[in-house]
Amino acid sequence: MTESVSDKRIVRVDLADRSYDILIGPDLLTSAGGETLARLDCRKVAIISDVNVAPLYLDTLVESLQTDGIETFAMTLAAGEKTKSFDNLTAVVDFILEARIERSDAVIALGGGVIGDLTGFAAAIARRGVRFIQVPTSLLAQVDSSVGGKTGINSRHGKNLIGAFHQPDLVLADTTTLNTLSPREFAAGYAEVVKYGLIDQPDFFHWLEKHREAVFAGGDARIEAIAQSCAAKAAVVAADERENGRRALLNLGHTFGHALEKATGYDSARLVHGEGVAIGMVLAHEFSARMNLASPDDAKRIASHLKEAGLPTSLGDIDGDLPPPDIMLDAIGQDKKVKGGKLTFILTRGIGEAFIADDVPPSEVLAFLTEKHPQ
Amino acid sequence: MTESVSDKRIVRVDLADRSYDILIGPDLLTSAGGETLARLDCRKVAIISDVNVAPLYLDTLVESLQTDGIETFAMTLAAGEKTKSFDNLTAVVDFILEARIERSDAVIALGGGVIGDLTGFAAAIARRGVRFIQVPTSLLAQVDSSVGGKTGINSRHGKNLIGAFHQPDLVLADTTTLNTLSPREFAAGYAEVVKYGLIDQPDFFHWLEKHREAVFAGGDARIEAIAQSCAAKAAVVAADERENGRRALLNLGHTFGHALEKATGYDSARLVHGEGVAIGMVLAHEFSARMNLASPDDAKRIASHLKEAGLPTSLGDIDGDLPPPDIMLDAIGQDKKVKGGKLTFILTRGIGEAFIADDVPPSEVLAFLTEKHPQ
Repeated sequence: MTESVSDKRIVRVDLADRSYDILIGPDLLTSAGGETLARLDCRKVAIISDVNVAPLYLDTLVESLQTDGIETFAMTLAAGEKTKSFDNLTAVVDFILEARIERSDAVIALGGGVIGDLTGFAAAIARRGVRFIQVPTSLLAQVDSSVGGKTGINSRHGKNLIGAFHQPDLVLADTTTLNTLSPREFAAGYAEVVKYGLIDQPDFFHWLEKHREAVFAGGDARIEAIAQSCAAKAAVVAADERENGRRALLNLGHTFGHALEKATGYDSARLVHGEGVAIGMVLAHEFSARMNLASPDDAKRIASHLKEAGLPTSLGDIDGDLPPPDIMLDAIGQDKKVKGGKLTFILTRGIGEAFIADDVPPSEVLAFLTEKHPQ
Repeated sequence: MTESVSDKRIVRVDLADRSYDILIGPDLLTSAGGETLARLDCRKVAIISDVNVAPLYLDTLVESLQTDGIETFAMTLAAGEKTKSFDNLTAVVDFILEARIERSDAVIALGGGVIGDLTGFAAAIARRGVRFIQVPTSLLAQVDSSVGGKTGINSRHGKNLIGAFHQPDLVLADTTTLNTLSPREFAAGYAEVVKYGLIDQPDFFHWLEKHREAVFAGGDARIEAIAQSCAAKAAVVAADERENGRRALLNLGHTFGHALEKATGYDSARLVHGEGVAIGMVLAHEFSARMNLASPDDAKRIASHLKEAGLPTSLGDIDGDLPPPDIMLDAIGQDKKVKGGKLTFILTRGIGEAFIADDVPPSEVLAFLTEKHPQ
């Protein structure tokens, strides 16, 4: 599924008439116009970015597009998880309509997962769907949110509870943009890289254990890790686009993770998404061990790897107070992966052996959270 | 495609795993619980209605559902086209999440097209899609908006410019509810019935010319007209769910119609959707005659039939001032059926011979509007 063309990799996501390419490599921003026109006949684009990313990369992107004759409109939003709001959705959709972006034109998300999720949702609902190009500039977005078509915003009831499935038409993952990430942001994205190994690719996890430093340093190992992650996600998405089954495996660590993000008020100073996933993956393995499904050694081995990568691995690693366990359980119940009162979790029988458990008793989760709670 | 079971008709919409039944007949509200459980295993529903419809039918629907053990939550909104706003969308989605409607539960739209479009859009984006049941209580909604999965809200840039494709899981078209419609509302819905004849079923149009009074009086002729309309729409939708081609035929009369709705500020005292479509269909036939595609006699014959049904058929039939022709052309350009600067219209070669023209010169439309403008 991956092929190498000069210095960039191409991962194809196979989804019938919604198939698309993910390009991964250095300096893709400067060839964005050509790569776009090679795949889409679009005359006009609306670019949505945020105040952190736009000053670094917007001019380069706009210049590349305009050189190839594509008319551009750009809108810059505040950065951070709170940007995924109904108010911003309204504003972005209005901007798209104001720019008269037609169904055959495109909307481009230039930024991390927040910009990608919000912009993709706006592209999904403007004119009931216009074309969408992801230009992810964080590691998290390159390996996760830009692949697979999940878009959305947050609600006071929880994260990503409002959204749509809307596949991109093209993803340009310019690895040069990762050089400006803070170590904390890079580590947060790395949690999702590790996730693919834990789901069903134990060899990839073992490779990461050996090459973690090289991946953090950049260069070929980093590109390899991103391409492997995109290919792993693409395979799962191709098999189950709308999450009726197997795709739920991608939520490994996310049920606990989302509850922690809610518990910390989506305050990125305390916890970002990838950090919530890191803790969530350790909790999922610990909970699996508690249910006698997996060895407790796996949870320890994973926690050790994530800790070396600079990630938090337990509730106690989060600054400040957390809500009591019953409130956290309530947040888990409000998460969208719920069926008939029983909780759905991704549990595991060991590294690379994750599975969907849709009959987890809330009482067991409450007892587990109480045990793990630092208070 | 239609079958008769006791006194109700069933029209099946064939859309692979999104196929669903439209039930048409008297007193379906009182058997809503049973009809729902016969098709969907749902424990909980959120019902969205408006202040006109809820007092008449909400109690009956709730009682039927509760008798069959389905938990119900109900929300009542203001009536009218202005209800299709981002603010109401936010409120409805929040209500759905607050009620903890899960993906396998359902949201029910009890009302006309406005409630159906808004509620369907909310059901499409809450948890990225929950089940959706349409209980249309206007003729317009029974023959048009409740069939086919188009959902959406209005924008300051135009009507239905924000939305999603989200198929219902069931449509309950209770013909008893039509007895409380005003003559004006019934006539507005009738415009869409006529449309199906004009698109590709000349025999149905001739049948309507003979049976118009019986359809207005109620009884079997009315049920027949509704079932024929639903079957006609279902056939088009099944062939082209996401409007990449043939489905655009359903927009006969709608490009002019939407522009007129915008020109009258979505003020239902001046013009409702079906009236806009009635005028729009006449204009589409007149414009086709002007382009030497069809005989001017067809436009006259259609206008005569619509006039007998109590519908407006020309710009001069609209109360109050209209914007000048160039502003109306601009509204047409902002309508979503635009491709590369040329206008897309549904034109015709005669009754039942509509076709998609995607290269209509704006200058011709401007000249035509100037000629038809009453000022």
